[in-house]
Amino acid sequence: MASTIKRIGVLTSGGDAPGMNAAVRAVVRACIYYDIEVFGVYKGYDGLINANIKQLYVRSVSNILSRGGTFLLTARSEEFRTKEGREKAYENFKKFDLDALVVIGGDGSFTGANIFSQEFDVPVIGIPGTIDNDLAGTDFTIGFDTACNTAREAIDKIRDTASSHERLFFVEVMGRDAGFIAVNSAIGGGAVAMVVPEHNWTIDALIKRLRKGAANKKASNVVVIAEGCQLGNAYEVADAVKKELGYFDIRVTVLGHLQRGGSPTTMDRVLASRLGVAAVEGLRHGESKVMVGMINNEIAYTPIGQAIKTEKRLGAEEFRIAKILSI
Amino acid sequence: MASTIKRIGVLTSGGDAPGMNAAVRAVVRACIYYDIEVFGVYKGYDGLINANIKQLYVRSVSNILSRGGTFLLTARSEEFRTKEGREKAYENFKKFDLDALVVIGGDGSFTGANIFSQEFDVPVIGIPGTIDNDLAGTDFTIGFDTACNTAREAIDKIRDTASSHERLFFVEVMGRDAGFIAVNSAIGGGAVAMVVPEHNWTIDALIKRLRKGAANKKASNVVVIAEGCQLGNAYEVADAVKKELGYFDIRVTVLGHLQRGGSPTTMDRVLASRLGVAAVEGLRHGESKVMVGMINNEIAYTPIGQAIKTEKRLGAEEFRIAKILSI
Amino acid sequence: MASTIKRIGVLTSGGDAPGMNAAVRAVVRACIYYDIEVFGVYKGYDGLINANIKQLYVRSVSNILSRGGTFLLTARSEEFRTKEGREKAYENFKKFDLDALVVIGGDGSFTGANIFSQEFDVPVIGIPGTIDNDLAGTDFTIGFDTACNTAREAIDKIRDTASSHERLFFVEVMGRDAGFIAVNSAIGGGAVAMVVPEHNWTIDALIKRLRKGAANKKASNVVVIAEGCQLGNAYEVADAVKKELGYFDIRVTVLGHLQRGGSPTTMDRVLASRLGVAAVEGLRHGESKVMVGMINNEIAYTPIGQAIKTEKRLGAEEFRIAKILSI
Amino acid sequence: MASTIKRIGVLTSGGDAPGMNAAVRAVVRACIYYDIEVFGVYKGYDGLINANIKQLYVRSVSNILSRGGTFLLTARSEEFRTKEGREKAYENFKKFDLDALVVIGGDGSFTGANIFSQEFDVPVIGIPGTIDNDLAGTDFTIGFDTACNTAREAIDKIRDTASSHERLFFVEVMGRDAGFIAVNSAIGGGAVAMVVPEHNWTIDALIKRLRKGAANKKASNVVVIAEGCQLGNAYEVADAVKKELGYFDIRVTVLGHLQRGGSPTTMDRVLASRLGVAAVEGLRHGESKVMVGMINNEIAYTPIGQAIKTEKRLGAEEFRIAKILSI
Repeated sequence: MASTIKRIGVLTSGGDAPGMNAAVRAVVRACIYYDIEVFGVYKGYDGLINANIKQLYVRSVSNILSRGGTFLLTARSEEFRTKEGREKAYENFKKFDLDALVVIGGDGSFTGANIFSQEFDVPVIGIPGTIDNDLAGTDFTIGFDTACNTAREAIDKIRDTASSHERLFFVEVMGRDAGFIAVNSAIGGGAVAMVVPEHNWTIDALIKRLRKGAANKKASNVVVIAEGCQLGNAYEVADAVKKELGYFDIRVTVLGHLQRGGSPTTMDRVLASRLGVAAVEGLRHGESKVMVGMINNEIAYTPIGQAIKTEKRLGAEEFRIAKILSI
Repeated sequence: MASTIKRIGVLTSGGDAPGMNAAVRAVVRACIYYDIEVFGVYKGYDGLINANIKQLYVRSVSNILSRGGTFLLTARSEEFRTKEGREKAYENFKKFDLDALVVIGGDGSFTGANIFSQEFDVPVIGIPGTIDNDLAGTDFTIGFDTACNTAREAIDKIRDTASSHERLFFVEVMGRDAGFIAVNSAIGGGAVAMVVPEHNWTIDALIKRLRKGAANKKASNVVVIAEGCQLGNAYEVADAVKKELGYFDIRVTVLGHLQRGGSPTTMDRVLASRLGVAAVEGLRHGESKVMVGMINNEIAYTPIGQAIKTEKRLGAEEFRIAKILSI
Repeated sequence: MASTIKRIGVLTSGGDAPGMNAAVRAVVRACIYYDIEVFGVYKGYDGLINANIKQLYVRSVSNILSRGGTFLLTARSEEFRTKEGREKAYENFKKFDLDALVVIGGDGSFTGANIFSQEFDVPVIGIPGTIDNDLAGTDFTIGFDTACNTAREAIDKIRDTASSHERLFFVEVMGRDAGFIAVNSAIGGGAVAMVVPEHNWTIDALIKRLRKGAANKKASNVVVIAEGCQLGNAYEVADAVKKELGYFDIRVTVLGHLQRGGSPTTMDRVLASRLGVAAVEGLRHGESKVMVGMINNEIAYTPIGQAIKTEKRLGAEEFRIAKILSI
Repeated sequence: MASTIKRIGVLTSGGDAPGMNAAVRAVVRACIYYDIEVFGVYKGYDGLINANIKQLYVRSVSNILSRGGTFLLTARSEEFRTKEGREKAYENFKKFDLDALVVIGGDGSFTGANIFSQEFDVPVIGIPGTIDNDLAGTDFTIGFDTACNTAREAIDKIRDTASSHERLFFVEVMGRDAGFIAVNSAIGGGAVAMVVPEHNWTIDALIKRLRKGAANKKASNVVVIAEGCQLGNAYEVADAVKKELGYFDIRVTVLGHLQRGGSPTTMDRVLASRLGVAAVEGLRHGESKVMVGMINNEIAYTPIGQAIKTEKRLGAEEFRIAKILSI
């Protein structure tokens, strides 16, 4: 099949994630491998609206594989949510003679991509780049593994001081409305409990768990709180617990944005590399309005509409494991 | 179903891998959760032969989740390869009134476990702990992700100096007869080429790749050599290349045993935790002569004979990706 | 000189710091080397009051060199501030037939040590273990280098996402009333500005610096706020800046207790090792009521009273450097 | 004083070291701060000979603070050792209208700098950048702290597997003719022994130490071998030991070039930042043919001839400490 894709634009959009650079690098190198010209669109959709676009070469992506963040910069574009904004974007899309667009980001970015593709009949493919892992159509999103390691390394450090002082720490991790980072960093960090959005835990149940730990002489420990959990933020949960379990010396740490940065792990780099190549190959083979993901270690193209509408559920299995291990 | 498993022995055997401690911890805690007494067998099968066995408690496995190596110690037992050795082992198995054995290790250890189980009709379950990832019946072995990160981090560092001096480095990584660590650390580390056991590369093909890289002004770079590759070790491959491409300033680094150590990654800790719990639950549900693994993120029990005989193949996909990215 | 020191107690007190374990290990091994029996006092001075004391051996300190925190546990003892508490402590000191006490901690712990030594004529020596580096009599305290690296690594990660989004981050680091961690992590992390307790900066001056950075197209950046600075905490400083520089997208991260944990750096381990040995050797040579420190890479014994009363000043030089580099 | 320095060239030369980029960044920013134009000379002295020179700006040194290696590239220049080479270099020096040169490197690079400065009456200042720490005139060289941490982290990992298998590892670290990295990584890594160039150890003495360790039940351990030690390389020392102590399971790891790379530690970044600024300020104040270093935490300018001729001796103190701790 003779591909009609000769010029591709690539952008990163929404919250950044470690491995976005690796994905851009893979898109660029795959394009060059297939004799496609590739253009970096800077600052997300705003770059398309403002013609902030430059051609990229092999050397443009030297030394970025190991770097966190995205050298293309990223943003959440308000203007792209408007018809006028998207029309400006399409003007530049035509002006730069682009044949297709690769969008690296999360569900907000994909929603925009889908609309843009429908409105102007433009081939668009999404690559899932978000630490939250909250996208259907892929087992893992780019940046998730790195964020899990960053959060867990922080928990390892906090546990050192928790143990030395026999304190109880509430550590708030990111993940928006999903508990994936929380579950993995809690099991990996040996937390006594975790509170996640997907689980209808009550303060009472949490207190019961902590009482049991205390009975087992676990004088010090860590509770992981997912930012989107229904019991409130880490400070609120800690306060509620403190009222009941006053004998604990309780502290709170909110890990915050450091979870978004850092050199990506091997797994995130390999995932980003494979998805970046697959995005270009997908476009060459006529895919559009799809997100490229990895399901059971195989490349899979899922319609964007489906990827963003389907809820990716955290398995009940991890809760069971965490409970068994927390005795 | 009323389980008849009341006392379980657990040992680590063969080459150590990061996450073995996390697996032992999960076995111990799952046993206690299910009111099973659990005994640590020290130094692999030799501990069974020599009655080097101690009961383990929740506190026995405090502070080991984050530690590399195995606090149960490990060894390759020559004596267990003999009928006499296994008979001594069985004597102690009975003496300690054990009902089942959990063996954490690789294929050599599983072969012994299988024979032991058959000879004495003893429930045995294996947990895949090896950095090499060369076991069928599980997508990933415990320690593999950590080893990939250790190797890739070393490659990141070597690339710094390679770039500064415009040198070409041949970096030898572990993996026995399998190229899994090589492929992942090569793609993750941005290597220009990799030589793995599964791929019939010739020195000529490698030289061709390097010539192309040189033409593209890639004056410095890294070639990853898997220890089991057919072209020889890293020094031999480097010498062969040097003869042809004398203009490269070529260096060799053999990463060696540091790839076996280190605090396990989040992924290895979570995997070890899940498999450790599943091993105990498997025994409770009557599983025996199986290896517990994770296939497509689900627990799977595979007959040991099948796990060690089936060759787990490195996919051709990764070579394609690596080739595309190495331009 | 024949030493009369035959039995030494060692404890960690106050806030924990990475490298405390390495210091305890060195004390224990030096004692055994010099045929001195050594006893671990658990949970700081409370352990002396409650006779929570156990003899330590070479194997007691295996595998702790690389671990953060302190396996002797630590606390701030209210009871030891009372005469009654110290009398109980002295009873146990005699009961365990101790000849001297090694106290690893910060200025609060040393104040207690000094009083105890004076009241009961007991040889006491202090080892400076605190991440804050706020003790005179030593160039560096144990834990400081690790904390500087932990804070700076977090800043590196935050900078990734700051750059990708062109945001301005206010990062609050620890250090109590001293700006040592702030200065080093700010220079090491390439911050545009830092606010420390020792420097009479105003919000206006900070805003001026940030305006200048913005003029130089530094659209994204990091400002380091020392926890003890006079302008308020990171949230308050950020709010004040936001009022004036509304065009910045401003975020705040409070690093918190993760700065207290983690495996100690090489420098902290070597420092702790040297000070631990020197503490034992000091006691053998008749030193008492002193803190052992490292000044210009030489061991120095400073009277405790002097160490805790003298203010260790952050040099003006670092401000100058930071200012020059922030253009 | 009105400085006559209006245009400065900066280069990195000899073996690269982590923190060289941070030093270049500081030189560039200090120049701009003082309204001096600054030019990067690429690939060491060869860049001066071949006019591989480009003006640098604030943005030229963005994002390099955290990167290992040197973006100016480095080399050992044979041509610069000749009068003809240096004359060509001086031609370009004049052609680019440079007033002074900053050379970041080790003693070989400084020797060249000194001759160049003398031959052509050109202001030259050296910044000590080498992992070996073998330069008088500064307590620490740039890159040394990072290399000590890299080597020690590798030893930590190797110790994990050494302990699990009760093996004895010989780990060879870098340092050329100096044992600084060896001593610090050995003490920091808890090695049972170290062999360094400065110490007249014999194989017999080493064996005696190891026998004693074995008697103390230290069944597993690490011996650090400095690359320049007189007993041979790590393989040779291991073989000699194996002949006598056949009961040890002995392995060898040569860490190699990974010790030269990696993101610099906080200490190396701060040191590089301070020395880079001080180099520019030194030139402004008329310093020439000096190396800028840090002695007792103060900036010190030492005549280059003195810095490269004086031997910086490893203190005997560290051996004593290491011996006491190795029991």
